[in-house]
Amino acid sequence: MIPVKAFATKGPDSPLAPFEFERRDLREHDVLVDILFSGVCHSDVHQARNEWGGSMYPMVPGHEIVGKVLKVGSKVTKFKEGDLAGVGVMVDSCRECKPCVSHMEQYCVEGMTGTYNGYERDKVTIAQGGYSTQIVTDERWVYHISDKLELSGVAPLLCAGITTYSPLKYANVQPGDKVAVAGLGGLGHMAVKFALAMDADVTVLSTSPSKKQDALDLGAHHFELSTDEETMKKLKDNFNVILDAISADHDYEKYLDLLDLNGKLLVVGLPKDNPKVNPFALIKNRRSIIGSMIGGTKETQEMLDFCAEKNITANVEVIKMQDINEAFERMIKNDVKYRFVIDMASLK
Amino acid sequence: MIPVKAFATKGPDSPLAPFEFERRDLREHDVLVDILFSGVCHSDVHQARNEWGGSMYPMVPGHEIVGKVLKVGSKVTKFKEGDLAGVGVMVDSCRECKPCVSHMEQYCVEGMTGTYNGYERDKVTIAQGGYSTQIVTDERWVYHISDKLELSGVAPLLCAGITTYSPLKYANVQPGDKVAVAGLGGLGHMAVKFALAMDADVTVLSTSPSKKQDALDLGAHHFELSTDEETMKKLKDNFNVILDAISADHDYEKYLDLLDLNGKLLVVGLPKDNPKVNPFALIKNRRSIIGSMIGGTKETQEMLDFCAEKNITANVEVIKMQDINEAFERMIKNDVKYRFVIDMASLK
Repeated sequence: MIPVKAFATKGPDSPLAPFEFERRDLREHDVLVDILFSGVCHSDVHQARNEWGGSMYPMVPGHEIVGKVLKVGSKVTKFKEGDLAGVGVMVDSCRECKPCVSHMEQYCVEGMTGTYNGYERDKVTIAQGGYSTQIVTDERWVYHISDKLELSGVAPLLCAGITTYSPLKYANVQPGDKVAVAGLGGLGHMAVKFALAMDADVTVLSTSPSKKQDALDLGAHHFELSTDEETMKKLKDNFNVILDAISADHDYEKYLDLLDLNGKLLVVGLPKDNPKVNPFALIKNRRSIIGSMIGGTKETQEMLDFCAEKNITANVEVIKMQDINEAFERMIKNDVKYRFVIDMASLK
Repeated sequence: MIPVKAFATKGPDSPLAPFEFERRDLREHDVLVDILFSGVCHSDVHQARNEWGGSMYPMVPGHEIVGKVLKVGSKVTKFKEGDLAGVGVMVDSCRECKPCVSHMEQYCVEGMTGTYNGYERDKVTIAQGGYSTQIVTDERWVYHISDKLELSGVAPLLCAGITTYSPLKYANVQPGDKVAVAGLGGLGHMAVKFALAMDADVTVLSTSPSKKQDALDLGAHHFELSTDEETMKKLKDNFNVILDAISADHDYEKYLDLLDLNGKLLVVGLPKDNPKVNPFALIKNRRSIIGSMIGGTKETQEMLDFCAEKNITANVEVIKMQDINEAFERMIKNDVKYRFVIDMASLK
């Protein structure tokens, strides 16, 4: 077994604190990754605090992981010692169902194995995440990372990145398409970058005028206040695609109305109350609402290669592992542009 | 001007009664159709009784029209005297916007001209529908009808037919796909016929056990009770496509849960209360909810040609014009399999 240092929480009301545990010895297809940076996702807070129910403790959060390969199993073909490597939101699946065979393991019929806060396939071992010094993962769920990219900014690509890239690809965004992004946080700012890299005409929709400069700084072509009635009237039937990354409660109708012929509302945010849908707004212009959850192993690698080609990374604030509890509090207040990333050197 | 006989209502509380008015003289591109059969759509009741608001009186309902060409304008190229012809839910549009140029005139940016209960493009003349002996329509909105099909059963294709054909095509239903139809009325029974003709594996979902024999009579491969919890559990992640033709209030989640990877919920029913959507059910399996409204002129002709090739017509109960008020009452009670069609000979 491989001893690792980590930060874990022991229950919904406990802060994250130093924790030591062991990773499994390498199986034939396993890769041992020395973790360099670990992104802090809003879902880390939800799960650490059991806000979605069913949390398993002690819990080492973290599913936006980048590092360097330390060692590989005897049958590993994708990686060798010294390679840069990433691990994302999942680390295993049944590998046999239709979604798995199509490399869309996030929709595995038996359920994917999350990187933390769930059982591994043995149904006994609790998977532990990236707020730790090392991780052991089957090579299918380990990705190549280009050495051209700033590593700290790569970590969030493994969740925030793929979660927004995948639906934009599924919606078949083409150069010149009018794409709007609603909700400018960790997910939203990645959606803006991807839509720009796909040569779309990009608008940020926000309830807060203070986001205007942020949107323009990211390169968005337009910024529109979604609280302004005149603006919303002007934007009716306007967009080909709207990526809805809003996690606060909201109705879909307001955004549906802005969609042009065959327009698509891509839903990746998860509000607590179920949004309502006006069927008249849906049948007008043959609009769609499309849900999407992260992305499969093949598409995650495709996204990382796309980022290398287009020089895309997340905008991050690098913190020490010891500052994680303060980072959680700041994240809840949206006081981060746009992702905290832990420099794991602080734990070694 | 061309004098015609009709049945009209003079207000939301008036029954339909004999009415005479004049159709316009033929313009260059107009076709004069002698109406043989006129289908009775549920929306005729909603509009006659002003249940959607904004109704215009006197109103001659009817937008499922088949007949024979009596006369054509000087520049008409598509039709000649004696041809069978159909007119559907719309009779004009701006002809210049993106949807119009793509022959999806139902989504015209200025708004399509409905066959009745709305102004024509002159913004003065009220369009009057198919519960009448003749109609004058621009040839773009007149369709060829095969003489191989039973004419009374063709009339409902112009609304119930295209409304269900169009989304099934947009969802790209393939042979072997698992397609479910929820709501077995005028729309639903057409959806079953189309899905069968597309070689799908077809299931009827219903809240009423009495619909089982009806479903099997239509050729559906399976019938499932949507009120049975065990059945709904068994059907989870099962269908590629569900066509939701339910007009009663309902939530989408129940049906979303039944969709497999990339599954599509096609919405053509218009419940009064806005249905709720659970975003977790939406992101699972990358599901979509897609709205759809009738179909454009090009696709309506394609649908009619498909019906001729596959020998598809609606199941109808032919009535006299004088029986329309009773038919409205029976339709409200779903006491029709599956569409009333008026034999216009009764008015001549």
